[in-house]
Amino acid sequence: MDLNREALREIIKEDSRIVFETIEPRFLSDNLGRLKGRADVLVFPVSQIEVSGILKYAHENRIPVTPRGAGTNLVGSTVPEEGGIILDLSRMNRILELDRETFTATVEPGVLLKDFQAFVEGEGFFYPPDPGEKESTLGGNISTNAGGMRAVKYGVTRDYVRGLEIVLADGTVLQVGSKNVKDASGLSLKNLIIGSEGTLAVITKCILKLIPKPEVSFSVLVPFKSLNVGIRNVLTILQANVNPTAVEFVERKVVSLGEEFMGIKYPRPDAGSYILLTFDGRKEEVEASAAQARKLVMEHGAMDFLLLEDKNLSDGIWKVRGALVRAVEAVSEQEPVDIVVPINQSDSFIDYINQLEQDSNMQMVSFGHAGDGNVHLCVVRGDRDEETWHRELKENMKKIYAKAYALGGLTSGEHGIGISKRPYFLHETPKENIMVMNQIKKALDPQGILNNGKSYITANHT
Amino acid sequence: MDLNREALREIIKEDSRIVFETIEPRFLSDNLGRLKGRADVLVFPVSQIEVSGILKYAHENRIPVTPRGAGTNLVGSTVPEEGGIILDLSRMNRILELDRETFTATVEPGVLLKDFQAFVEGEGFFYPPDPGEKESTLGGNISTNAGGMRAVKYGVTRDYVRGLEIVLADGTVLQVGSKNVKDASGLSLKNLIIGSEGTLAVITKCILKLIPKPEVSFSVLVPFKSLNVGIRNVLTILQANVNPTAVEFVERKVVSLGEEFMGIKYPRPDAGSYILLTFDGRKEEVEASAAQARKLVMEHGAMDFLLLEDKNLSDGIWKVRGALVRAVEAVSEQEPVDIVVPINQSDSFIDYINQLEQDSNMQMVSFGHAGDGNVHLCVVRGDRDEETWHRELKENMKKIYAKAYALGGLTSGEHGIGISKRPYFLHETPKENIMVMNQIKKALDPQGILNNGKSYITANHT
Repeated sequence: MDLNREALREIIKEDSRIVFETIEPRFLSDNLGRLKGRADVLVFPVSQIEVSGILKYAHENRIPVTPRGAGTNLVGSTVPEEGGIILDLSRMNRILELDRETFTATVEPGVLLKDFQAFVEGEGFFYPPDPGEKESTLGGNISTNAGGMRAVKYGVTRDYVRGLEIVLADGTVLQVGSKNVKDASGLSLKNLIIGSEGTLAVITKCILKLIPKPEVSFSVLVPFKSLNVGIRNVLTILQANVNPTAVEFVERKVVSLGEEFMGIKYPRPDAGSYILLTFDGRKEEVEASAAQARKLVMEHGAMDFLLLEDKNLSDGIWKVRGALVRAVEAVSEQEPVDIVVPINQSDSFIDYINQLEQDSNMQMVSFGHAGDGNVHLCVVRGDRDEETWHRELKENMKKIYAKAYALGGLTSGEHGIGISKRPYFLHETPKENIMVMNQIKKALDPQGILNNGKSYITANHT
Repeated sequence: MDLNREALREIIKEDSRIVFETIEPRFLSDNLGRLKGRADVLVFPVSQIEVSGILKYAHENRIPVTPRGAGTNLVGSTVPEEGGIILDLSRMNRILELDRETFTATVEPGVLLKDFQAFVEGEGFFYPPDPGEKESTLGGNISTNAGGMRAVKYGVTRDYVRGLEIVLADGTVLQVGSKNVKDASGLSLKNLIIGSEGTLAVITKCILKLIPKPEVSFSVLVPFKSLNVGIRNVLTILQANVNPTAVEFVERKVVSLGEEFMGIKYPRPDAGSYILLTFDGRKEEVEASAAQARKLVMEHGAMDFLLLEDKNLSDGIWKVRGALVRAVEAVSEQEPVDIVVPINQSDSFIDYINQLEQDSNMQMVSFGHAGDGNVHLCVVRGDRDEETWHRELKENMKKIYAKAYALGGLTSGEHGIGISKRPYFLHETPKENIMVMNQIKKALDPQGILNNGKSYITANHT
């Protein structure tokens, strides 16, 4: 590879936005910081023209390009394994338009989720996708088809992307999708790009769908005596016609970790597990739904149905829920897993994990988006030395993914595959599917420069 | 092309499911019957194995294959232009599973929409996609990403496809998607296939998402003095937080055509236009929504707000709405158009059509799914001779599509492109987008056997 500094300086106009020497370590990794890549240059484009210029140059010279947003991913998606160019989109962070008539906002990919949510809510609108990591970029959310808490009612990021401006590996700029609600006009390139983890194109503009801000929103905490009674109630709630926004399930032992970490206490510490529900919408509607849900769970073994009307208590309970991964990490290194299984298999999967935890003597903290079968799991290192940790982790991960697939599940519900989950994903996915994905990769990025070695990519096309 | 009858007989086991001579004309066309193709053989596979066998044979021998369901499309998608094999999926019409716990049904592609809707509603579930043509197959609905009346609230077919079994052009069988709610595991091949009009693969199984059946559902007819006041109220309703299921707009002069055809009368014949609304959901919710909608439209110039509590009246009004195309066709040949524009451009587009109707002296009957900007338009032949009709139609169609694209619209909201809309689609779509679509086609169907000459396909890869 022959990287020409002058050529790059002609594309990226300001010297302050191009770094050849001493690239900060955080740009070479993901949010966990364990995997470290290497790169020859880090650039911060501020326009589609600059992105296109960089890619055209990289394509012509077969130079690997690793796109990144805020780098909050947990699976190594932003680790530049092959050197080359890091394309950091974080400075393309303008909200370009709020179109009240079509219920859309047009933004650059580097806008942070938290900034966007605050902006649209301030204008009376609502952007439903709500991944736990609010410091992530919208471009990153789209690239992993991020999910989050509110997916039970509202769906995932894919459902809120109306259109994208993308730059292909050779620098070609495309508009895919549009402000139109319906589309039966040719192949849906937009949907191919969503969730492709930066392997097919670089996103430079996003048209996002908004909805009117719900009139009211409130949460409910439902304690249960045991783990099993709790998780079986998840299905009871989902089968009723009560349309909850969020359905989170968490064991008492996991809550305790979070309580200690945050210094906030859950009510009913005598419970074995909790379901945390949110309802939002019109007042009449959600009150009727909550009343129906209350009746149902009380008939099915709930200890209580605690309407979290006190804002401090409600915020505190969600804060503990949001801090579970950090609570685990404060104690020990851990491997995050975001397996998804069909919603009626969550209990079998969690039963299996609890059994494996005992058998393997490795702590496994499971919780997560029970309402859509997306189980988050922290596999905890504890006091294992490096070699034992890696060996035992790998053994257990293999078992965990095999079980998930046996239950009809998938490697990732919302984090993506990246580098860390790639071996398991490739092992469990039929080779025909992987082959087709690689054929598409080859068609769109014949030189194989975009985020190689990530996700489904097995062939090195360079 | 060298079609070996014995080879085909070995794949399709029953002689009654393979037709070499005298293929009925309806298998060589679409629902309109104007375009006529030719074919060497018509087969009715009943299993994925047979479909795979046929495609493998066709791939190896470079024989064109035209897949079809019920053939209800309006754009020539099922017209076999290049001869070869017609692959009719209509006998793969079993409902295989209703999974109450995951809210999914698994079906073969030939199941008719009306049969499926009746089945799931009988079981307390609801399949929201509701295209006007209920005799269409579910496989066909998926292949065109069909929309319909209820898309305003519930979205389109794409939003209800959890997984597919597909057979690629070379006979390879893939499972894409699954019963899982979330998926961030590799490229979304499922979403690439949805809406691809049979150009990339043949669907042999569908896992569809269901929702609980809404508690109540009712319609409202809102008459307005003029066309313009009516259509501007569509946006007023959409911007309010009243969550209607359907928002249809129709001019009085168009209703009159339907009334005459069906022998059913609309109330308030003194109106210049109507909005037809549906609300569904929990009783408390929809009553509150309807009350709010009533207040809004009455403040914005509605003549009345007629709650259609009488089932006969409600059914009659929807029947007239559903019969508009047939009402037009009973009088004269017509060209159906299903342009989609951003929801705030419907009025500009309809204004333009009305102006063009006057300028061109060609009757244009517009109505449609105003709630999602999907304008249905019948361009009427009248007493023009063949040559004049084709020439003037082409001239006007060019203008209509140019206007739609100038307003940010697209060729098709739900019918697809097929043969009939292909010249306009190719003309209006950036060549870079078409090129990428063709690259994907080439990657998945290198011999170019699947539904060639349709939609985006410009290169003949055979």
